[in-house]
Amino acid sequence: MAKIAIVMGSASDKPVAERAAGVLASFGLAAEVRVISAHRTPEEAAEFARSAESAYSAVIAIAGKAAHLGGVIASYTLLPVIAVPVKTDVMGGMDSLLSIVQMPKGIPVATVAIDGAENAALLAVSILAVSDDALRGKLKEYREKLRQETTKADEEVRKR
Amino acid sequence: MAKIAIVMGSASDKPVAERAAGVLASFGLAAEVRVISAHRTPEEAAEFARSAESAYSAVIAIAGKAAHLGGVIASYTLLPVIAVPVKTDVMGGMDSLLSIVQMPKGIPVATVAIDGAENAALLAVSILAVSDDALRGKLKEYREKLRQETTKADEEVRKR
Amino acid sequence: MAKIAIVMGSASDKPVAERAAGVLASFGLAAEVRVISAHRTPEEAAEFARSAESAYSAVIAIAGKAAHLGGVIASYTLLPVIAVPVKTDVMGGMDSLLSIVQMPKGIPVATVAIDGAENAALLAVSILAVSDDALRGKLKEYREKLRQETTKADEEVRKR
Amino acid sequence: MAKIAIVMGSASDKPVAERAAGVLASFGLAAEVRVISAHRTPEEAAEFARSAESAYSAVIAIAGKAAHLGGVIASYTLLPVIAVPVKTDVMGGMDSLLSIVQMPKGIPVATVAIDGAENAALLAVSILAVSDDALRGKLKEYREKLRQETTKADEEVRKR
Amino acid sequence: MAKIAIVMGSASDKPVAERAAGVLASFGLAAEVRVISAHRTPEEAAEFARSAESAYSAVIAIAGKAAHLGGVIASYTLLPVIAVPVKTDVMGGMDSLLSIVQMPKGIPVATVAIDGAENAALLAVSILAVSDDALRGKLKEYREKLRQETTKADEEVRKR
Amino acid sequence: MAKIAIVMGSASDKPVAERAAGVLASFGLAAEVRVISAHRTPEEAAEFARSAESAYSAVIAIAGKAAHLGGVIASYTLLPVIAVPVKTDVMGGMDSLLSIVQMPKGIPVATVAIDGAENAALLAVSILAVSDDALRGKLKEYREKLRQETTKADEEVRKR
Amino acid sequence: MAKIAIVMGSASDKPVAERAAGVLASFGLAAEVRVISAHRTPEEAAEFARSAESAYSAVIAIAGKAAHLGGVIASYTLLPVIAVPVKTDVMGGMDSLLSIVQMPKGIPVATVAIDGAENAALLAVSILAVSDDALRGKLKEYREKLRQETTKADEEVRKR
Amino acid sequence: MAKIAIVMGSASDKPVAERAAGVLASFGLAAEVRVISAHRTPEEAAEFARSAESAYSAVIAIAGKAAHLGGVIASYTLLPVIAVPVKTDVMGGMDSLLSIVQMPKGIPVATVAIDGAENAALLAVSILAVSDDALRGKLKEYREKLRQETTKADEEVRKR
Repeated sequence: MAKIAIVMGSASDKPVAERAAGVLASFGLAAEVRVISAHRTPEEAAEFARSAESAYSAVIAIAGKAAHLGGVIASYTLLPVIAVPVKTDVMGGMDSLLSIVQMPKGIPVATVAIDGAENAALLAVSILAVSDDALRGKLKEYREKLRQETTKADEEVRKR
Repeated sequence: MAKIAIVMGSASDKPVAERAAGVLASFGLAAEVRVISAHRTPEEAAEFARSAESAYSAVIAIAGKAAHLGGVIASYTLLPVIAVPVKTDVMGGMDSLLSIVQMPKGIPVATVAIDGAENAALLAVSILAVSDDALRGKLKEYREKLRQETTKADEEVRKR
Repeated sequence: MAKIAIVMGSASDKPVAERAAGVLASFGLAAEVRVISAHRTPEEAAEFARSAESAYSAVIAIAGKAAHLGGVIASYTLLPVIAVPVKTDVMGGMDSLLSIVQMPKGIPVATVAIDGAENAALLAVSILAVSDDALRGKLKEYREKLRQETTKADEEVRKR
Repeated sequence: MAKIAIVMGSASDKPVAERAAGVLASFGLAAEVRVISAHRTPEEAAEFARSAESAYSAVIAIAGKAAHLGGVIASYTLLPVIAVPVKTDVMGGMDSLLSIVQMPKGIPVATVAIDGAENAALLAVSILAVSDDALRGKLKEYREKLRQETTKADEEVRKR
Repeated sequence: MAKIAIVMGSASDKPVAERAAGVLASFGLAAEVRVISAHRTPEEAAEFARSAESAYSAVIAIAGKAAHLGGVIASYTLLPVIAVPVKTDVMGGMDSLLSIVQMPKGIPVATVAIDGAENAALLAVSILAVSDDALRGKLKEYREKLRQETTKADEEVRKR
Repeated sequence: MAKIAIVMGSASDKPVAERAAGVLASFGLAAEVRVISAHRTPEEAAEFARSAESAYSAVIAIAGKAAHLGGVIASYTLLPVIAVPVKTDVMGGMDSLLSIVQMPKGIPVATVAIDGAENAALLAVSILAVSDDALRGKLKEYREKLRQETTKADEEVRKR
Repeated sequence: MAKIAIVMGSASDKPVAERAAGVLASFGLAAEVRVISAHRTPEEAAEFARSAESAYSAVIAIAGKAAHLGGVIASYTLLPVIAVPVKTDVMGGMDSLLSIVQMPKGIPVATVAIDGAENAALLAVSILAVSDDALRGKLKEYREKLRQETTKADEEVRKR
Repeated sequence: MAKIAIVMGSASDKPVAERAAGVLASFGLAAEVRVISAHRTPEEAAEFARSAESAYSAVIAIAGKAAHLGGVIASYTLLPVIAVPVKTDVMGGMDSLLSIVQMPKGIPVATVAIDGAENAALLAVSILAVSDDALRGKLKEYREKLRQETTKADEEVRKR
């Protein structure tokens, strides 16, 4: 069964990682959460990424500041790598965002919003759903629920 | 067979779209290039996105400035949507980038570098390769070629 | 009688919406507050915008991050659309601002300051006042009150 | 008949002003183009704005750098003031944009994109169209033409 | 005797104004604090600035967001105008700073740091000291005191 | 007679310095142009600044990138120091601007617009004019000429 | 024995300085902490820097806003100067960062992350380790400890 | 003898690398220029960095956009790593700068100005000069030459 790796650069990113894991779980998808640092444990990062294909279908990388984690993993694997720039004090995470999204030609990283852990998970879902109709069905339900929440909020605000 | 839609917000983005199409073609992937504007042809954009699932496996959206194209398409389809922020004069395309990458919780858009058309195509390839070993093989070859180009450049510079 | 729609992208924007509604009410203008998301309820957003002309004289759209709401509504209606970029952590709302103000040629959105809900309402008032002398009279009074508040603050500070 | 004032802060902004004037002319709207500087001719700016109501239905202000023109005019008139931030070297016109859009509570300025002269004119059209059905009809035609241009570009790109 | 006007755009800027007034008082300089808004009381701002020469030797203008106060005053007076950009949420006051510092050719405004009220006052002192040796003497003492404070802090940190 | 020093950090800033010198000359003010680098000739910079009071009435410092020249001179002299941030590739000179304007409490530098050499000179004129009525008279004439230029441009544009 | 100077521009930077000192102490390196301001005590800064070679092997300079301290010291000494930009409200310390990192050709300053005091110390260690094998051994141990911390965090997160 | 590695992420950075090599050569220092990509040749980058200690005294890394090269090398070696952010279109190289300078605690990279290749080389010289008096002597001469160039430029400008 498809399994997603959620890798964070530092244990302090755990709350972000857990939001991604929660979304994946709600879709019945297995996830493995890891702490691997592109800079403090480069050998482990390379080793993880080199063997990721055999264990996972996609990788979600969560990192801040000079956030190289997604790029380093992407450089060693052919799997789709989705990266979440973590909010920092530098223009609200612009350092994380630019370090991730501006990858050079040849090695893409799919970037989502700053602190956008849920969307990273949903992107992983939509990627797996390309070849999994049951999962796409669940995604449809998720979207419908999303729609209903907004519709309900609309009704409440109109009542007043 | 898997087919990718490449949608640009304006005919002036054609050179960017063609770079994406070129990469897809080199992987033997079919692509359809379209000009659809989120703002000038909203009905067409919605119609395109609503029916995209039946025709494509993923969508690449190319747009600049207040670049809503990727988000609008993503709001109507369950397919993975990859977006390329087009370079502008405002901080080199920061308007395009932020308009695309900062999508709200629930509707992700996979963002690549400013003007990063090739990487959008390669991301689409890696997404399809999740369930297509032959394609992943081609991606491996592509990466190997990339490696060799750099290695060759290294040799040339060391010779001097 | 002229009526203004105040649409917010998320229920969390209610405090901003209420400031706009409060200003409109003080001018005796009817307002309808709605929660409609460009991304989570795109069909509702399109439907709302397509029929807005028959019910409203102008639309105020309140949204943050990749704030497409104003642009999406503007793409479906000929009414003046005024948009309020909501403050975020990314450079204090620069993501919202650029997503809104940088609209492409053909479909304008009248943008006010980040979190500038009162000014959005006042802009709507000035727009309606183009053909409503009584309303312009009220706007004149509002400006006079504004002037007096500042003059009074000036007197207080000079007394010390 | 409704008449729009197009005021630029410096004669060097004439190409921008002419794009706005061109759009207004295509809608059969009268426009008067002026060079008035908030800083070099403050008395003239105040005088112009104080009497604008009797001559115009709306004002378009075009200025760059510390672009106070729109705000100064708005402080003296009850007319809707639309402002175009002119592109500069500082982050592509971020100085102009922030000087215009960040107006304080009480005195709104309707801001459009950097160098967005056409959209300033179109916004003026939509404002006048609130009480002018014939004009709204023309706006509808304009939008339809816009749609057709994009559709045609789409057809051309699909033919290849 | 030389007198300095300290003008703030809003009563909420009082704490900033008081820091400037405090420094001037410590130099034995008379200051008059005013609340005048470039946008809410434009006539008063113009009137104040037109007659400032007869009452003051320099003007300190304190304003935030689209901070036109310094520029508006400078456009009506030949006195040196010093402006303090007030901190805001937009990149920490970048909107205020750019609105003030980017004045067009012909009408300068002497800009100090964001929230730099004390330096605005010290700049006023140094301007008056150009023709006032006694004041320059006091400025020398101030600088010496500044030097001693740093030297003392240095000694304390070295003791440990 | 009053004399102004115009100091540039690098000979490449000469065109900027010459614009400042030109304005001063047009007011009949003596200026001395110097090339002194805060970083390459720190002793000369200190020596220059220490003795500036005896020779000049004010200093204009022109520098780019990590532009310390104005701050270094200000730290050694009690004269008013006016600084011109030179345009660079980093956000159009934001590096120069922030390096200059954000001076710490105690040592102000009067900052003008990026590349705003003329305004630096005009600010120096207004500073000297505080105690020189003849000079203020010339400044009044300058402003009047400025006004006439704009008025003439206005007339030309209205003729068409 | 090698000794490092840690210089801060203001006593308020002491917490940052202490983090650097702590890291140096953990490597058994002597450090001297100083408060010297480039602007308030320029003579002391010059004197310190001129004689630094005889007492220290490297200098760490900690400063914020228009942070000239590192550049001023570098202009007077041939020692490696490492600078820490202190976090501020302006885009999270972008003023400090640009004031430090954008040094002109000829006088380099080794810049680390905003508030990156520990890394400044570690950079000093790696510089001394170029000619000190024992120190390099300690650096290796430090890196190994770093690796183990991350590995342990990884194990903990995987256990759950 | 001490040898410096100059590594660039792409052959297109050669002009930048050559400026660094030129400075090193002028100090009689051996340099080896390499093309190694953190993303396209990650194994080679790791291998290079792991063995760098045995061949070099310091590493200069030149890279742009999401510039991970310096960080990746620093994560594998104990040598001082100096990085040059290459100019790009995104705010003039702010993406490169932030990707490099914002390294996390534990793994420092000594960052110089955007495109500051000469300063990277000079920083390497000053690092080697910590334990090499002859080299420090050459650095002193270099500084003296620098001083003379500025002094000469000063004389020329004063002659006119």
